[in-house]
Amino acid sequence: MTTLAKDNRVVTLINVFTVAPERQQQLVDLLMHATEITMRHVPGFVSAHIHKSLDGTRVVNDAQWRSRDDFEAMLRHPAAIPHMQEAAALAQVEPHVYEVVETVHG
Amino acid sequence: MTTLAKDNRVVTLINVFTVAPERQQQLVDLLMHATEITMRHVPGFVSAHIHKSLDGTRVVNDAQWRSRDDFEAMLRHPAAIPHMQEAAALAQVEPHVYEVVETVHG
Repeated sequence: MTTLAKDNRVVTLINVFTVAPERQQQLVDLLMHATEITMRHVPGFVSAHIHKSLDGTRVVNDAQWRSRDDFEAMLRHPAAIPHMQEAAALAQVEPHVYEVVETVHG
Repeated sequence: MTTLAKDNRVVTLINVFTVAPERQQQLVDLLMHATEITMRHVPGFVSAHIHKSLDGTRVVNDAQWRSRDDFEAMLRHPAAIPHMQEAAALAQVEPHVYEVVETVHG
């Protein structure tokens, strides 16, 4: 049952935001605030990282969720929705759900 | 000296590849091979993750480098260049260099 196995594995949501450089810090602050006050308390949240590009034009937010079901429940969570709408108003966002296929340490 | 400080911090290269679903696994295999046989041995390599999107259309490769100087030296490394060209031939790639501004655990 491949589908069931997949649904029981950790998934990673990677949001790539394309942003005007003068709004990059505002977007970073919004995502840090949303992660601290809401996302980390949503059932199934494992961890998250927020990255800002040195060229000022991108912000990447990756979040690990215990399962695809937990991630999909978050998308409908009343506390999460306003944060996602605020971020989408500041920048163009491209979200995709991933599985990690390799981790390498030097 | 903000510039010097920045150059001495770990940076993260995040490559977002847009790929035809029938080529996603080929791209993943290529990136895993390049990381194992070349990238992990390049001076300044810290760690890397390869992610494949569940919808088949994206691959994300993030790699931590000891400093921006190490990352820029890698771009000119004779062993690294053919791997980057092979990957770029398989998919559209959007690379940016980032700093991590927040890490949160649930």
